[in-house]
Amino acid sequence: MKVLVINCGSSSLKYQLFNMEDESVLAKGLVERIGLEGSVLKHQPYSKDKVEIKAEVPNHKVAVKLMIDALLHEEYGVIKDIKEITAVGHRVVHGGEKFSGSVRIDDKVIETLKECINLAPLHNPPNIWGIEAVRELLPDVPMVGVFDTAFHQTMPEHAYIYGVPYELYKKYSVRRYGFHGTSHRYVSMRAAALLNRPIETLKMVTLHLGNGSSITAVDGGKSVENSMGFTPLEGITMGTRCGSIDPYLPIFIMEKEGVSIEKINDYLNKKCGVLGISGVSSDFRDIEKAAEEGNRRAKLALKVFAYQAKKYIGAYAAAMNGLDAVVFTGGIGENSSLVRKMICEDMDYFGIKIDKEKNNIRGREVDISAEGSKTKVLVIPTNEELMIARDTVALI
Amino acid sequence: MKVLVINCGSSSLKYQLFNMEDESVLAKGLVERIGLEGSVLKHQPYSKDKVEIKAEVPNHKVAVKLMIDALLHEEYGVIKDIKEITAVGHRVVHGGEKFSGSVRIDDKVIETLKECINLAPLHNPPNIWGIEAVRELLPDVPMVGVFDTAFHQTMPEHAYIYGVPYELYKKYSVRRYGFHGTSHRYVSMRAAALLNRPIETLKMVTLHLGNGSSITAVDGGKSVENSMGFTPLEGITMGTRCGSIDPYLPIFIMEKEGVSIEKINDYLNKKCGVLGISGVSSDFRDIEKAAEEGNRRAKLALKVFAYQAKKYIGAYAAAMNGLDAVVFTGGIGENSSLVRKMICEDMDYFGIKIDKEKNNIRGREVDISAEGSKTKVLVIPTNEELMIARDTVALI
Repeated sequence: MKVLVINCGSSSLKYQLFNMEDESVLAKGLVERIGLEGSVLKHQPYSKDKVEIKAEVPNHKVAVKLMIDALLHEEYGVIKDIKEITAVGHRVVHGGEKFSGSVRIDDKVIETLKECINLAPLHNPPNIWGIEAVRELLPDVPMVGVFDTAFHQTMPEHAYIYGVPYELYKKYSVRRYGFHGTSHRYVSMRAAALLNRPIETLKMVTLHLGNGSSITAVDGGKSVENSMGFTPLEGITMGTRCGSIDPYLPIFIMEKEGVSIEKINDYLNKKCGVLGISGVSSDFRDIEKAAEEGNRRAKLALKVFAYQAKKYIGAYAAAMNGLDAVVFTGGIGENSSLVRKMICEDMDYFGIKIDKEKNNIRGREVDISAEGSKTKVLVIPTNEELMIARDTVALI
Repeated sequence: MKVLVINCGSSSLKYQLFNMEDESVLAKGLVERIGLEGSVLKHQPYSKDKVEIKAEVPNHKVAVKLMIDALLHEEYGVIKDIKEITAVGHRVVHGGEKFSGSVRIDDKVIETLKECINLAPLHNPPNIWGIEAVRELLPDVPMVGVFDTAFHQTMPEHAYIYGVPYELYKKYSVRRYGFHGTSHRYVSMRAAALLNRPIETLKMVTLHLGNGSSITAVDGGKSVENSMGFTPLEGITMGTRCGSIDPYLPIFIMEKEGVSIEKINDYLNKKCGVLGISGVSSDFRDIEKAAEEGNRRAKLALKVFAYQAKKYIGAYAAAMNGLDAVVFTGGIGENSSLVRKMICEDMDYFGIKIDKEKNNIRGREVDISAEGSKTKVLVIPTNEELMIARDTVALI
């Protein structure tokens, strides 16, 4: 059985085609600059050379068509007939409170997705365009929607309600949602498997640290809180996003720096985070390099990031009344031994101790705990696409 | 030696006159509605009846005069000569980064305080009016300023820098300050004394829970973080203040609810918190009563409050890599056995266990830990005025 996984952004379309017999990837690719000048498809078939196809791609429907043509191409394609694709799984950013799990997509689901647009005005529309394009081009192929927010719908009310008028929850669904759910779900399941313990018995903190970062308390396999909130702006400070700050600060910045209400969200999303602190870059590789060379603000940015992550580990140990494992994933979590070290040092109160040698790895599944570390520390590369493919199989 | 402690708000003046030989209070009082209709002085001499004096009080200078007259009054006064007042201690809300401890007030200090006005535009001006009024009316009496922020100036840089452009720190001193410092300092010192251990050896979380609430990590007697930030709006959700929320929410509320930039700070300070969640009241006594009667949103407000406090205890245990004691103070911390219970239950991972009977107290210094509780849990009524009086004695 072959399953195609699609992740549409406002000007991009990422895809992976899985052979679900062995969960191998037959091909993956990316259409960039949709609706812009210089659109291009980068297609990587398994065990063949990567190809780049320049084309005019005014919208997501043309992007889907381009992807299908590549998958069927006699030279660099990987299937002979479109019928080989049994199902398509779509990543959807925001499912609001409507979706607490993945769903088979039908007209009603699409309607409901459209109702969620106001919660994710930047992310949900391209997700819907992708769904509609596939439905038009592959009308007979069943589709499944997998939501970034769904895993966190088990969060208890006292964790998701903010200290603002309750009417805002009633009127606009203002509450904490949490994001990166598919990633947190995947790594928490892998962690239980690696530790060879039933997930129901484990209290874990999973840290998805990337350009956007979020941290989840996973109690018995269920998310009980995620550090991102109503939007992906809350939580730990990120590449360019501010994370949690004094609620007066957005107002202060608008007033003092003359940032308009139209621009302030952009400011908080794009000019802040470790980029804002360091003045160097939003990319942790650049920041680590600058810190190594003695740049004071780069060092500070790393310290702030690690310190905030530490505090989330402690806070979530309190939320769960326990801690069995800490799991690192995402671009930084998988690859930066420095950041992992900074987060885990001086945490023996929580039974956390990592092995310096074991921690010296990148992008592999490794238990980096030191011998005798009461709390296990794992590195697990995330695989949201595989999770989406599995959910898709399960639902069709 | 007699020391007068003064705490000026925008329309109020609170005072206490201490006899520092035994730290007893000779008299205390409050001038209310300064600059408004119906001003009144409520004066309580020790061991005499309370008196209420109605008067026209257009400004803080008149309020200071009224207070002095009451202290000297032949019937309800407590001193015979103004010279009996050896010194005056003033509470000052915001000392910015300029004051990391209490100071003897001179012209230069007053200038510096004025520079801090932009950091606390509502609070610092009345503090300065009070200082200037006393200086005019009691020109020979030495004065000391005690800052709410000073105790927290030991916070490390990685704890006080936000994930926003570093230039905002340079330009406007945007950083975490923390508040209620005098209270946190007082109760952490008392806790060490009660536990009969040198404060240098203790890692404590002190919870000042009142109409405004803040939580401090006190490591070896030094504040390493406080939950309030650039302003007293950040942190745990409070009576009417929102506490930490998604940074996009202030913007969302402005846009969706049509709240102007001039009004949004007021909205977040006065319409949110447990009042906003419960819809009942900002007063925990009312909320507890409503919750007892089955009001769902009142129950939720208590749960949110307790849950957020729990998370701070965990986060600060991570910041300090340890936890020896948890200290409750402030109106709620001292008086609500229910809130203390809700915060401490299911916290045995942190060695926290309270004794149900011992917890059944109000406003007394009690160790409420259960037998064998590894982490001690104490209730300590705060006494900021005494702390100010002591600092004043130390500095003159």
